[in-house]
Amino acid sequence: MNIAILGTGGVGQTLAAKLSSIGHTVTLGTRDAAATLAREDFGAWHKENSAVKVTSFAEAAAAGEIILNALAGHAVLDSLTAAGEANLSGKILIDISNPLDFSKGMPPTLFVVDTDSLAEQIQRLLPNTHVVKTLNTLSAHLMINPQSLAGGDHHLFLSGNDAGAKAAVVGYLTEWFGWTHIIDLGDITTARGTEMILAVWLRLWSALGTANFNFKIVQ
Amino acid sequence: MNIAILGTGGVGQTLAAKLSSIGHTVTLGTRDAAATLAREDFGAWHKENSAVKVTSFAEAAAAGEIILNALAGHAVLDSLTAAGEANLSGKILIDISNPLDFSKGMPPTLFVVDTDSLAEQIQRLLPNTHVVKTLNTLSAHLMINPQSLAGGDHHLFLSGNDAGAKAAVVGYLTEWFGWTHIIDLGDITTARGTEMILAVWLRLWSALGTANFNFKIVQ
Repeated sequence: MNIAILGTGGVGQTLAAKLSSIGHTVTLGTRDAAATLAREDFGAWHKENSAVKVTSFAEAAAAGEIILNALAGHAVLDSLTAAGEANLSGKILIDISNPLDFSKGMPPTLFVVDTDSLAEQIQRLLPNTHVVKTLNTLSAHLMINPQSLAGGDHHLFLSGNDAGAKAAVVGYLTEWFGWTHIIDLGDITTARGTEMILAVWLRLWSALGTANFNFKIVQ
Repeated sequence: MNIAILGTGGVGQTLAAKLSSIGHTVTLGTRDAAATLAREDFGAWHKENSAVKVTSFAEAAAAGEIILNALAGHAVLDSLTAAGEANLSGKILIDISNPLDFSKGMPPTLFVVDTDSLAEQIQRLLPNTHVVKTLNTLSAHLMINPQSLAGGDHHLFLSGNDAGAKAAVVGYLTEWFGWTHIIDLGDITTARGTEMILAVWLRLWSALGTANFNFKIVQ
């Protein structure tokens, strides 16, 4: 499958390496491909993952049958605009980003919160794209390897307006990464809940001294 | 032990009935005791729980060796002011309230969020009281009966500035209700995290069709 990933930080790298390793054609989109390839962390990673193409947001979006948004929150709307609505139209966009604001110190606050969400902002920007929010509530390592923690007995959340798109994403999450416990929270406004969960996630990270944890909804 | 509970809604009633049933002297504080006793739901409840005294915020706070804040969020600061700083000074206040704003429809939003919390507002109002935020992330039934769900294998969170007060509260939660899994998140600012978790809690309630669930932090 042709998969575009926007964002070349740790999350984008982790997802790209995994998806490439299981046989998908992965294109990473970035603002300036030459600058990204010249970055020390990215250059080292790309040597090990040279099958992954690195190109502009627009070329990556055009190449992807499905788009994964692994951008830093503050860069999301500008980067998706650069990617081009036509290149994203009619496609599923899996939104993994969080609206983290690091300008007020640690832990970060949220630059969209409570009465709106970054996922809704993306959906409003791209009305013809099926935005599905998921994977934003846990570390990159666990995103691609849920079975490494308690045999996968913990939960992923899903928000989106289109039932067909959500069903497809559940299928991809299972096939690509082995997710077995996924809760559909409802429409895209429910992403307010999973973006706001970052506030306790960040404090659990600090209290537990590790990011290798996840939420299980016990019923 | 003399325990004051402020607030006479479902949470206050549930906590008062439980604590009274295990032998504590429970005083419920309310704005207008006569009006509360005349309320149909409260009158019926009080017939079954007549050992629980019902009086003003100030008298209840004065009588309590420890205070449980089970007030509706919007009423908290005014009611604690009415309770009187002198009646609360030097005592532990377990804050169970959430800053829910129902004025914009369902699900409610939060009237304090992200850069502040209701727990911090209480701590600033009452600098000589040891505010410990806990129990605000689950239904009243589960607060007093954690073992009824998965044998207690799920988590409660704790936030507060005073280590001794937090240790005492952990002891009470274990002794009163049987809590065995409690995570100390840190100082009172970490209550931002547990108040904001309400956003996903409310959407899980809707998606699951039950409030009989809780978060487990899987490590």
